Amino acid sequence: MPLFAFVNESLVPADTASLLIGDLAIQRGYGIFDFFKTMGGVPIYLDEHLDRFFYSAAQMRLDIGMNREKLKQRIGALLERNGIADSGVRLTLTGGYSPDGYSLAQANLVIHQTPLAAPITEEPMGSIRLMTYSHMRQLPEVKIIDYLMAIWLQPVLREKGVDDVLYHRDGVIAECPRSNFFLLTDRDVLVTPVANVLKGITRMKVLEAVTGRLAVEERELRLDEIRGAKEAFITSTTKHVLPVTEVDGVRVGDGRIGPVAKWISAELYKRARSNQ
Amino acid sequence: MPLFAFVNESLVPADTASLLIGDLAIQRGYGIFDFFKTMGGVPIYLDEHLDRFFYSAAQMRLDIGMNREKLKQRIGALLERNGIADSGVRLTLTGGYSPDGYSLAQANLVIHQTPLAAPITEEPMGSIRLMTYSHMRQLPEVKIIDYLMAIWLQPVLREKGVDDVLYHRDGVIAECPRSNFFLLTDRDVLVTPVANVLKGITRMKVLEAVTGRLAVEERELRLDEIRGAKEAFITSTTKHVLPVTEVDGVRVGDGRIGPVAKWISAELYKRARSNQ
Repeated sequence: MPLFAFVNESLVPADTASLLIGDLAIQRGYGIFDFFKTMGGVPIYLDEHLDRFFYSAAQMRLDIGMNREKLKQRIGALLERNGIADSGVRLTLTGGYSPDGYSLAQANLVIHQTPLAAPITEEPMGSIRLMTYSHMRQLPEVKIIDYLMAIWLQPVLREKGVDDVLYHRDGVIAECPRSNFFLLTDRDVLVTPVANVLKGITRMKVLEAVTGRLAVEERELRLDEIRGAKEAFITSTTKHVLPVTEVDGVRVGDGRIGPVAKWISAELYKRARSNQ
Repeated sequence: MPLFAFVNESLVPADTASLLIGDLAIQRGYGIFDFFKTMGGVPIYLDEHLDRFFYSAAQMRLDIGMNREKLKQRIGALLERNGIADSGVRLTLTGGYSPDGYSLAQANLVIHQTPLAAPITEEPMGSIRLMTYSHMRQLPEVKIIDYLMAIWLQPVLREKGVDDVLYHRDGVIAECPRSNFFLLTDRDVLVTPVANVLKGITRMKVLEAVTGRLAVEERELRLDEIRGAKEAFITSTTKHVLPVTEVDGVRVGDGRIGPVAKWISAELYKRARSNQ
């Protein structure tokens, strides 16, 4: 059975869903999105994702064209139509069909769903190696569609034999292109950057989960703090909790998946299953 | 008569030309473009624009899928079909229909034409006021589709009562979002930034036109050099030569359109008419 997608008011077969070339995403790279999972047909952390989606839209002066209830109904209608239990749902909002190819117009809203490539698990799904790169995303706290630098860097990552890139500016760590970064210091303090990062929903859930059980700091985090750290991991809706065993060829901790990453992964799995 | 556009191999009515939502421009803001004018049905500086288009594609690891001759034939076919004498033609090349929404795929090539809103004239079409803003475009020497910051700043420009923004980093001038910046010093040296800018075709033509007739320097240019300058102007395919009379509320020179800008405008008009 083919999947369906919404393009504004129209429910259409997903493989025919399109935007006219005058859209400002195509013309000028102007748009935002959000992405959440469903497990057993239930959207996970939907309100948190919608909070951020409305925030991103407002920051970018884009009008979603409906309130949260109406948007939830539309998402619900899509989920019902497609009937996939475990999936990812992406909301994309673009600058619209601009008459002059530059000024904002009525935003286009696309909602589409894909079967989940990697369902989250209790255990981390593996571990990764990072390289660092000096770059700061534009409007980093807004979930814009701009991943130009990340995609452009893919051949560099392959060449260096690493899995992802960790952005920093003047030695201050920001984030990976699609995930947040956490570090466990030698004094067992969990630290994550506080400024110039996208505030991930999984990041938020990690902070909630560890409160009262582990010292935690949201603050400026410098590259040189990686040396001497016990553990590091990244978090995202797709990657869940993914331990980092190496940064720029230097081992993090003992170079293995650490107990704190494992514990947080299991804790987040439990919370996600109960949507809390 | 409706206009037509090419989407890859297909010549379609321009108002139906579209890309599927899986395209990496829509998903990730990943694409390049170029834009040239036609005057009396003749493309102006086509080879210079195609040089840059092929350069941008290579830098972004995008395959145009045909050589220059084939691309020229396709552009020619579109111009013949549409039959507009004075127009703008845009070539857009995106990251394509990525199976995972992240990895580059076979690029999508869109070619479309629009009647010319503002034909170039011998005299500058007016003058503008700028505000400065600390920002550096990603991969500034590549003509990527990313104009997120420029569009995002539009309400700020309106609020400040200025016409456009001049990007700088740490006081070093780069460019405006869609044009290059020139300054005439009090010693009659024409200066334009050399690094971290898109090398505009009109910029190139200005440098060619003034050689041997005016001292010219491509070098690092600082914001504080604007004070004391005799003239300033911006250049682009669309704007041609547009004098800048004010930057951040401070008058440039005597605050009027200067003789050098006028002379260069007329000279470029002459050259464009003969496509040289």
